[in-house]
Amino acid sequence: MGTAALAGLASNVTLQAAESSPTAPPAAKDVTRLLARYIVNARYEDLPAPVRKEAVRTLVNWVGCAVGGSRHETVGIAIAALAPFSGPGQATVLGRKERLDALNASLMNGISSHVLDFDDTHLRTIIHPAGPVASAILALAEHQPVSGHAFLNAMVVGIEAECRIGNAVYPEHYDTGWHITGTTGPFGAAAAVGKLLGLNEQQMTWALGLAAVQPVGLREMFGSMTKSFHPGRAAQNGFTAALLAQRNFTSSDQGLEAKSGWANVLSTKRKWDEITGNLGGSYEVSLNTYKPFACGIVLHPTIDACIQLRNEANAAKLTASQIQSIELHVHPLVLELTGKRAPKTGLEGKFSVYHAAAAAIVTGAGGDKQFSDKMVNDPAVVALAARVTTTVDPAIAEDQVRAIVTLKDGKRLEKYIEHAVGSVNNPMSDTALEAKFLDLADGVLPAAQAKRLLETCWKIESLKSAANIAKAAAA
Amino acid sequence: MGTAALAGLASNVTLQAAESSPTAPPAAKDVTRLLARYIVNARYEDLPAPVRKEAVRTLVNWVGCAVGGSRHETVGIAIAALAPFSGPGQATVLGRKERLDALNASLMNGISSHVLDFDDTHLRTIIHPAGPVASAILALAEHQPVSGHAFLNAMVVGIEAECRIGNAVYPEHYDTGWHITGTTGPFGAAAAVGKLLGLNEQQMTWALGLAAVQPVGLREMFGSMTKSFHPGRAAQNGFTAALLAQRNFTSSDQGLEAKSGWANVLSTKRKWDEITGNLGGSYEVSLNTYKPFACGIVLHPTIDACIQLRNEANAAKLTASQIQSIELHVHPLVLELTGKRAPKTGLEGKFSVYHAAAAAIVTGAGGDKQFSDKMVNDPAVVALAARVTTTVDPAIAEDQVRAIVTLKDGKRLEKYIEHAVGSVNNPMSDTALEAKFLDLADGVLPAAQAKRLLETCWKIESLKSAANIAKAAAA
Repeated sequence: MGTAALAGLASNVTLQAAESSPTAPPAAKDVTRLLARYIVNARYEDLPAPVRKEAVRTLVNWVGCAVGGSRHETVGIAIAALAPFSGPGQATVLGRKERLDALNASLMNGISSHVLDFDDTHLRTIIHPAGPVASAILALAEHQPVSGHAFLNAMVVGIEAECRIGNAVYPEHYDTGWHITGTTGPFGAAAAVGKLLGLNEQQMTWALGLAAVQPVGLREMFGSMTKSFHPGRAAQNGFTAALLAQRNFTSSDQGLEAKSGWANVLSTKRKWDEITGNLGGSYEVSLNTYKPFACGIVLHPTIDACIQLRNEANAAKLTASQIQSIELHVHPLVLELTGKRAPKTGLEGKFSVYHAAAAAIVTGAGGDKQFSDKMVNDPAVVALAARVTTTVDPAIAEDQVRAIVTLKDGKRLEKYIEHAVGSVNNPMSDTALEAKFLDLADGVLPAAQAKRLLETCWKIESLKSAANIAKAAAA
Repeated sequence: MGTAALAGLASNVTLQAAESSPTAPPAAKDVTRLLARYIVNARYEDLPAPVRKEAVRTLVNWVGCAVGGSRHETVGIAIAALAPFSGPGQATVLGRKERLDALNASLMNGISSHVLDFDDTHLRTIIHPAGPVASAILALAEHQPVSGHAFLNAMVVGIEAECRIGNAVYPEHYDTGWHITGTTGPFGAAAAVGKLLGLNEQQMTWALGLAAVQPVGLREMFGSMTKSFHPGRAAQNGFTAALLAQRNFTSSDQGLEAKSGWANVLSTKRKWDEITGNLGGSYEVSLNTYKPFACGIVLHPTIDACIQLRNEANAAKLTASQIQSIELHVHPLVLELTGKRAPKTGLEGKFSVYHAAAAAIVTGAGGDKQFSDKMVNDPAVVALAARVTTTVDPAIAEDQVRAIVTLKDGKRLEKYIEHAVGSVNNPMSDTALEAKFLDLADGVLPAAQAKRLLETCWKIESLKSAANIAKAAAA
């Protein structure tokens, strides 16, 4: 082989190296940096009023859920296990007496806000946006001064980061088995905490890179305590990422888009425009929804339908024992996520469309009580759940259901839900959110304190210190 | 449709639900539980002497690396960022004065033991086994009494867990872009800490499930500080998993093998027998290797060859300036992992086969100094690096290289390395390990203390308290 041929071979090899190297130019350019730039420059003053309003509603719902879940054994166990390793009591565990260092507090509040499966949902991605973001920044707000304006702005950019990244990879990423709240949550927490720490563009880019290496959560864990660990740990991981980046702990500048970056490794779908398109021109928090029922959103149309059928049956003086069968025509995800036939615990009950339907018919509700160990083992509910059948219908959307009750005497009652209560097209009212909040706080905080806490949340924009919310939520 | 047809449809739907549900029976049965059972029952007394010996060598090498890396700015930044959130000073950061809570200490020691890219390597998977495992259990040993026997046994089972899981998914999992040390490391740390906490089989199964949801690390981060964050965070995550499981924080029983479990979500290859076959009959720690050079293992054959060529050239009174070109015939991974053409920092230099070869020729070594910012920008090294070319040769194994130096006068020197020093077939001797240890400790600990620490490591099996190692390594 001559010199020219050798030189050609050498340059060819160099080219191949560049192509196959993880540091090769990405298919998409500067996705992480453009997102970081947006986060760094985003101003509270530029947020449209409806966006601010929805962010406040998101906060109200999240605080209610965190307080309501705070006495769950999942939270108690996590505190008992990790408190011996906690730093100074910088931050409140909402609804409880314990104070932990801000990182551990963010973990615990993230767990408690999700443990009842009652938190907010970004329906496009099934992400629960507030858990990772609000848990992190409320804990930070007790560690350094954060105004209500700054808090709300950080919450909006955090939710923007996690949901836009979610949009880019959903549904393939979720279908692979990832619990998307825990995998996108670290980006949301890193963005929001990083915003409050005043990171510059380079540091924010690194913070996102550090978030990229810390995804949390597999769908296999649904039905166990580990599910609510996911948003909590996501909060703590993103918080940690921002703290490290603040000190110039370096990472990749292309944590999202590189060949061996987050999106390529964790998803087969990557729609970069969803992350970088129209930044500051649209807000994902505007699409946030709140659950009227204490379980996964896919069950809501079924519960809505069953409660309505029950109330109509009650009016006609019918009882559950007269029901021959309940036939549900559902979206495919309903069986994929909540197909458990014979749940034994309240937590497992949240993954059983059969139980949810039966409990709604028997009790007329879908709250935390309907997903207790007691209710799941209630003989009347168990007997009726066995008479529930499901049919997957591709024509049924995620917020829809068709429920048909056949009575033993042959009569047929049918209910078609076009948009379940709590969906984007049929949102919970402020009044309904308040009722949910106070119901969640009932039994955790004294009624007067719960009411004050609720008022403090609504007026977040006028608070000099966002930490007042955490202080008002301590037991 | 008649009643029979309806009943058939209903049962058919139920069947489909079971098949598509993440809780459906896994392709592999009880992988997580069988591994947990092995970990719970493993006894120090059953470890063959060569296995114990290799575990001690692994410990010696790991302590040396952690001490040697302890003053790196990566560690300093991490401590500065996170110490304000640390709990009581339960555990030592090796080589330093700071004491942190055991979880944070495990993070820092995991970072420092990897930051020089000088730690141990399980060549079948390129996992660095000690980082996640030893970092976690040494920190625990300062928090509760742990004998030397118990420590070594826990280290062996931890390494067994992470490397067996790695064997099951390598290379596909790694090729996807995961940094396998950080993704399998949480299993290793959870197994080892869980063993020392005395978890029962159910708790250990849950600990592995909690580890499954906390993988850390993308290959995109190679060349930044985030790379060494991976094994540190893996230690902390697995440690956390075991603490939670100890309190009966529930998880899936099939965290590894379920449809939406770790292996199916994070890898396209899953060879379950690698995890559950011959448990207790073979030991992955026996395959552990130690690096003579302070960079990724793929560069070792090249450095070995270049040092030998240099020494031969020195004998012939040749100098670098007489070299026309250095031609390297390498394994494909060399370019994939270390193809950086023009590194600017010492850290980036570890990902440049061009720099590594040039520095070895110029200085005759491949230690930490050869991967400093100074060396990477040394004009003589930079000039020579530009004259290095690479050719991927499928006939070259991972521990091999063929290096051809062409001199300006046309003379040709060639070196074929069949097994690089430090590989399984050409392991470092105890004496070489000791020299490496003392060289790493030089400048961090006084010489007499370093020597005492080394002796303490060698005699781990006779220590009443494994914590003595940590205490002896404090600055």
